[in-house]
Amino acid sequence: FSEIISKDTTAGIGVDQELISAVPSSNPAFVSRNFTDAEIDYCRSQPSPQSSFAARWAGKEAVFKSLGVASKGAAAAMKDIEILPNETGAPTVTLHGDAKAAAQSKGITRVHISLSHSETVAIAFAQATSS
Amino acid sequence: FSEIISKDTTAGIGVDQELISAVPSSNPAFVSRNFTDAEIDYCRSQPSPQSSFAARWAGKEAVFKSLGVASKGAAAAMKDIEILPNETGAPTVTLHGDAKAAAQSKGITRVHISLSHSETVAIAFAQATSS
Amino acid sequence: FSEIISKDTTAGIGVDQELISAVPSSNPAFVSRNFTDAEIDYCRSQPSPQSSFAARWAGKEAVFKSLGVASKGAAAAMKDIEILPNETGAPTVTLHGDAKAAAQSKGITRVHISLSHSETVAIAFAQATSS
Repeated sequence: FSEIISKDTTAGIGVDQELISAVPSSNPAFVSRNFTDAEIDYCRSQPSPQSSFAARWAGKEAVFKSLGVASKGAAAAMKDIEILPNETGAPTVTLHGDAKAAAQSKGITRVHISLSHSETVAIAFAQATSS
Repeated sequence: FSEIISKDTTAGIGVDQELISAVPSSNPAFVSRNFTDAEIDYCRSQPSPQSSFAARWAGKEAVFKSLGVASKGAAAAMKDIEILPNETGAPTVTLHGDAKAAAQSKGITRVHISLSHSETVAIAFAQATSS
Repeated sequence: FSEIISKDTTAGIGVDQELISAVPSSNPAFVSRNFTDAEIDYCRSQPSPQSSFAARWAGKEAVFKSLGVASKGAAAAMKDIEILPNETGAPTVTLHGDAKAAAQSKGITRVHISLSHSETVAIAFAQATSS
C-alpha cells in the first residue's frame, strides 16, 4: 500500500504598488497594449475604472515578479498576464503566450493574486506555485 | 513500507490597505460589531489604539479575501475573524462561526497573517493554506 | 513500491512598509550596522540609492516577521538578513548568524522576498517555508 500526496511549492512571490494617478488608463494605446478585451470590459464596468485599471496593473507587475523571469521582453508581455474575477468575484490569473511558456518552463501551475486599492494607491500581491 | 509526507497547499491569498484615519475606531458600535473583546482589549493597550484597530481591520479584510468567499454576508462576519498576538507577539488568526465554517468547507486548516502600519496607512497580507 | 513527494509548508509570512524619507540611509552608522558590504555596494549602484536602501530595509523587517522570532535581540540581527539580486535580478534572501540559527531551529529552509517602492513608500513581502 502506498499513498502519494502531492502538494504545492512556492516558486516565487511578487508585490507591487502603483499610484493610481500615475497609471495612464485614459490612454487608449496604453490600455490596448497591456490589457485584454475582457479586462478592459471589466475595468470599465467598475465604479472607478481608473482604480480598477491601476489595481490590475499592479497585479500584472506582481505576477511578473512572482514568475522570476529575467526581463519583460516585448511590451506584449503584460497583456499575457490576464486578471479577471472568478465566479465569487475573486481576482484570478490566466497566463497566455510568453508568460505561460515562462511559467511552464519553471513548473509553475498556478498563480494566486490579491488586489487592493485606496483612493490613491493600488497594491497587489502574487504567489506562484508549482506542484 | 510507505511514508506519507503531508504538506500544505495555498488555498488563497489576500492583501488589504486602509487609511488609518478612515477606520472609525472611536465609534463604539463599529468596534463592538467588528472586534472581539480580546481584540478590543489588545488594541486599547497599544501605544496607538487607532493604528492597532486599523491594522487589525486591514488584517480581517485580507483574511476574508484569502478565504475566497463570495460575499461578506452578515455584518458579524468580520468579528468571526479574530487576530491576536501569539506568545512571540506575532499576529495569529482564529476563525469562528461562519468564517470557520467557510474555511472548513474549503479544507483550509490555517491562515497566516502579517500586519504593518505607517503613520497613515495600515496594510495586511494573509495566506490561507489547506493540508 | 512507494513514492514520497516532499513539498514545502509555509512557516510564516511578513509584510512591511517604510516611508522612504524615514529610512536614514545617509547615516553611515545606520548603514554599516544594518547592511552587508554587498548590499551597500548594490544599493549605491542603483538609480536611487535611498529608495533601494529603504526597500531593502522594509524587506529585512518583512523577513524578520516571517521567521516568527520573538524579539530582534542585538542590533546586528538585521545585518544577518541579506537581500541581494540573483542572476535574474530578483531579490533573494540569505540568512547569516542568529537569523540563520533561528530559521534552522524552526525548520525554515527558504525565505522568498519581493520588494516594491513608489516615490515615497517602500513595501516588502516575505514568505518563510519549511520542507
